[in-house]
Amino acid sequence: MGDLLPEPFVADSGPSIAYVCEIVSVGEGGADMVAKRPDRTLYQEAAVGVRCRYNERKGVFYPVMWVTTEWSLMRGILNGYQKRLADRISLTKLHPLNPGLGAVGPGKEFGGFCVKGPETTLSLGVNLERRGEPEDLPSFGATFGLRRYPRTDPSQGSVDEPVEILKSNSKVSDVWLGTGHLSTTLELGEFKVLSGAVYRSGFTITGSKVLKP
Amino acid sequence: MGDLLPEPFVADSGPSIAYVCEIVSVGEGGADMVAKRPDRTLYQEAAVGVRCRYNERKGVFYPVMWVTTEWSLMRGILNGYQKRLADRISLTKLHPLNPGLGAVGPGKEFGGFCVKGPETTLSLGVNLERRGEPEDLPSFGATFGLRRYPRTDPSQGSVDEPVEILKSNSKVSDVWLGTGHLSTTLELGEFKVLSGAVYRSGFTITGSKVLKP
Amino acid sequence: MGDLLPEPFVADSGPSIAYVCEIVSVGEGGADMVAKRPDRTLYQEAAVGVRCRYNERKGVFYPVMWVTTEWSLMRGILNGYQKRLADRISLTKLHPLNPGLGAVGPGKEFGGFCVKGPETTLSLGVNLERRGEPEDLPSFGATFGLRRYPRTDPSQGSVDEPVEILKSNSKVSDVWLGTGHLSTTLELGEFKVLSGAVYRSGFTITGSKVLKP
Amino acid sequence: MGDLLPEPFVADSGPSIAYVCEIVSVGEGGADMVAKRPDRTLYQEAAVGVRCRYNERKGVFYPVMWVTTEWSLMRGILNGYQKRLADRISLTKLHPLNPGLGAVGPGKEFGGFCVKGPETTLSLGVNLERRGEPEDLPSFGATFGLRRYPRTDPSQGSVDEPVEILKSNSKVSDVWLGTGHLSTTLELGEFKVLSGAVYRSGFTITGSKVLKP
Repeated sequence: MGDLLPEPFVADSGPSIAYVCEIVSVGEGGADMVAKRPDRTLYQEAAVGVRCRYNERKGVFYPVMWVTTEWSLMRGILNGYQKRLADRISLTKLHPLNPGLGAVGPGKEFGGFCVKGPETTLSLGVNLERRGEPEDLPSFGATFGLRRYPRTDPSQGSVDEPVEILKSNSKVSDVWLGTGHLSTTLELGEFKVLSGAVYRSGFTITGSKVLKP
Repeated sequence: MGDLLPEPFVADSGPSIAYVCEIVSVGEGGADMVAKRPDRTLYQEAAVGVRCRYNERKGVFYPVMWVTTEWSLMRGILNGYQKRLADRISLTKLHPLNPGLGAVGPGKEFGGFCVKGPETTLSLGVNLERRGEPEDLPSFGATFGLRRYPRTDPSQGSVDEPVEILKSNSKVSDVWLGTGHLSTTLELGEFKVLSGAVYRSGFTITGSKVLKP
Repeated sequence: MGDLLPEPFVADSGPSIAYVCEIVSVGEGGADMVAKRPDRTLYQEAAVGVRCRYNERKGVFYPVMWVTTEWSLMRGILNGYQKRLADRISLTKLHPLNPGLGAVGPGKEFGGFCVKGPETTLSLGVNLERRGEPEDLPSFGATFGLRRYPRTDPSQGSVDEPVEILKSNSKVSDVWLGTGHLSTTLELGEFKVLSGAVYRSGFTITGSKVLKP
Repeated sequence: MGDLLPEPFVADSGPSIAYVCEIVSVGEGGADMVAKRPDRTLYQEAAVGVRCRYNERKGVFYPVMWVTTEWSLMRGILNGYQKRLADRISLTKLHPLNPGLGAVGPGKEFGGFCVKGPETTLSLGVNLERRGEPEDLPSFGATFGLRRYPRTDPSQGSVDEPVEILKSNSKVSDVWLGTGHLSTTLELGEFKVLSGAVYRSGFTITGSKVLKP
């Protein structure tokens, strides 16, 4: 997957990550938006993240992160994520009162996919085997990004800087572990899916900080 | 709201209903679809239901029920729902690990809306005041429908029959009660929003049965 | 392609058809809708049609016709088309004043595709070679359909009747001929793309008539 | 409409503009994309442009320009347009072979609208009265923009520069003139619709140049 890494990031050993998820997101002091403008607080996201280093600092860089709303696209691009707009992202949802669906547990399967134009750019699935703990999930260190606003004419200013995206308040719950499978139109090279997981997580992003050499 | 009722249904006294929701739906034996084709198991729905009678039988008829997927549209039309396709239905979602969102409770607000073409056909909100029980929700009796497949030429067959939609296994949980507000492009006439509620529910629909005179 | 034909239609020899197009459609007396509700007058359509017979009568039956709007879906289903809703249909558009696009002519390529869920259900292209006449396009005879509104319970009525869809006022113009290519998730069996064409056409559909044995 | 103008642009006397259109767009050397990836060459756009000056230079600034695809959104933002993503833009299309639609001419009406979330952000219409010439359309001078990539942290670089967007090869054809009407959720202040027009236009955008004081 190292081919997907732009400078100055360097591929590092250890597992990378791919995911499909739904995100409830509010700005600081904007909790009432979930009721007044729910379309501004919910989106789906699909991404591939490559384990890497910036000098000695370990982390993950997401060569592409597809999202389903303009506001998550634009906000992410300002923070340094390589966001793209998906036509559609779909993922497993369960409902505790649906008489046709049992409870989450071993043997259950989750899946998700992302469509853009005529392509299913990412499709993945997880077969649950056992309960897990937050500590069972791979840890990456920093979340790296690139803030890029290129010039289209020599008279213009531009930005091109590696950043660390500032995440805090991270919490993880409801972890289930199992096997996984993955297909994508990204040129990942040869890879092996080591494991799969389903979980909830929450965090705060306060912006991003330029990485110093 | 009686103006929205087609024959043979007759308006009855008591509160009617409007809602916006997200539905996880699987066919009999199709639980694995939530992973293999999640787009075939999730949709949003917005509807207005009018309290009414068929002869002496009490129930509710939904003059329009907007949905966001083809399969829920077509399945509903075969069962007797007056389903229409929405361009977009959006509603409040919370996330237990979002650091900017507190827990569900008094003072919290929920909202949802449905867009079709240039119109927001339905928009509603609920301000939570207190926990409730399933018994606190209005009860309607039967769910009525109309199976309609009209002819476009005298040589053709047609169907036009009042039905009762067969729901079973109904369960309700996580009930919160409060005040509500509602706006719609439907011609409801004068109405007053008596109360609002947020809850989960689950049920099985096994088809619909023609109502006998 | 005969496997896609339901009774009472029987496969016939000669070329079948697949197309992707954009349709401007107005009801009788509804020409002002193009300005007042343009979303109710424009849609995209993708379809495969199989050459067949009903007794001795020759025609074409479309096992599936994907469209992008609810109103074309529902109207088509009442007339006997096997319509389905696409997530997206995209096709070549030219613009006479675009400085980067030359005029239509030999060597130009047209293409289109239809996406539904995670699948590109139909994708096709045409390489133009020469001007043609309306008479150069394959002629099918009747347009057959099936009006189907099945029962979901023994108490219900149903409709299941073969029809001929009534088209009149047919006009064709701007015909270009060439080679074509096609891929689809439909199980067409073995097939060969004989030729491709790009053209405009217009017609009136006045309904459909039940076929008599 | 001057309230919508950011510094350093200053409102100027004379008519402003609002439009809804469909655009066929290809990059340099990318004409074959219309066939291979038609979804990358077609989009709809709706915008309001305010007549203004930059020092003594006359032009137009578009406080918002809604578009329907990611690639037109991102390309425009790099060039200095204040682009936003629409949920839907719909506009009148005619078809020369549709038996229910007459030819373009006096008395015909065109319309279009843009929807984003629960709002119809722009809706407009034109009633045709007479043929016109390209010279009958208002002329603005330069097309101004603002290239903006703000910082989210003091360590970051940023761009904030007024530009002139470089358009060439402009051609206009098929001009029809008449009366117009307009409604929008933008806070335009008091305004009067002076006239309406329907036309085709084509041009090349080669980038944008920073405006010097």
